[in-house]
Amino acid sequence: MTNYQPALDQMFQALADPTRRAMVQRLSRGPASVSDLAAPFAMSLPAVVQHLAVLQSSGLVKTRKSGRVRTCTLDAGALSRAEQWIHQRRIDWERRLDLLGDYLAESDPHAPERTKP
Amino acid sequence: MTNYQPALDQMFQALADPTRRAMVQRLSRGPASVSDLAAPFAMSLPAVVQHLAVLQSSGLVKTRKSGRVRTCTLDAGALSRAEQWIHQRRIDWERRLDLLGDYLAESDPHAPERTKP
Repeated sequence: MTNYQPALDQMFQALADPTRRAMVQRLSRGPASVSDLAAPFAMSLPAVVQHLAVLQSSGLVKTRKSGRVRTCTLDAGALSRAEQWIHQRRIDWERRLDLLGDYLAESDPHAPERTKP
Repeated sequence: MTNYQPALDQMFQALADPTRRAMVQRLSRGPASVSDLAAPFAMSLPAVVQHLAVLQSSGLVKTRKSGRVRTCTLDAGALSRAEQWIHQRRIDWERRLDLLGDYLAESDPHAPERTKP
């Protein structure tokens, strides 16, 4: 396969879980400590840490330890790469629809004359 | 959890596999029969059909049978919902950076005076 991007596998896998999406959503409003990040979830701290590890290995979240506090930050660049992949597919799809529309308009003898800008 | 969207779980899960992304990429250029879709892959037809089933249940791909041919079509609306989710997180992140920039500029007495439009 061409275009095989393991980073995309891991990013989309990370986003396929509602807890991890909620973490990304929280971090999109600014960095947070692990315990702040864990606070809204009805789950054990180890379970939160495990979700965080998936986000980290996908590249979507970076963490940095300062003293006893580990701070988590969103990597907007990684998020942007996942967005860009989907965006490009949607653009390809729309371009194809436009071409199809042009073709149908040109092949219809009853179509009103089109003015090109 | 608020914002729990099972459809997003399934869409991101579907996109987390390189074969399924390649199928989405192919379908973004137009509908294809199952055998056309399978052609570039060095895998059995049942394996392709299984990947296709994941794409279908995620809502990213629709199929329609006409005679003996099953045609697969991308659902650009579903793709757009996945894109939108990521886009919104990135926008939230950038908005926060802008606010932070404003705050830093206002609290720096040596900063050049800013002209507001």
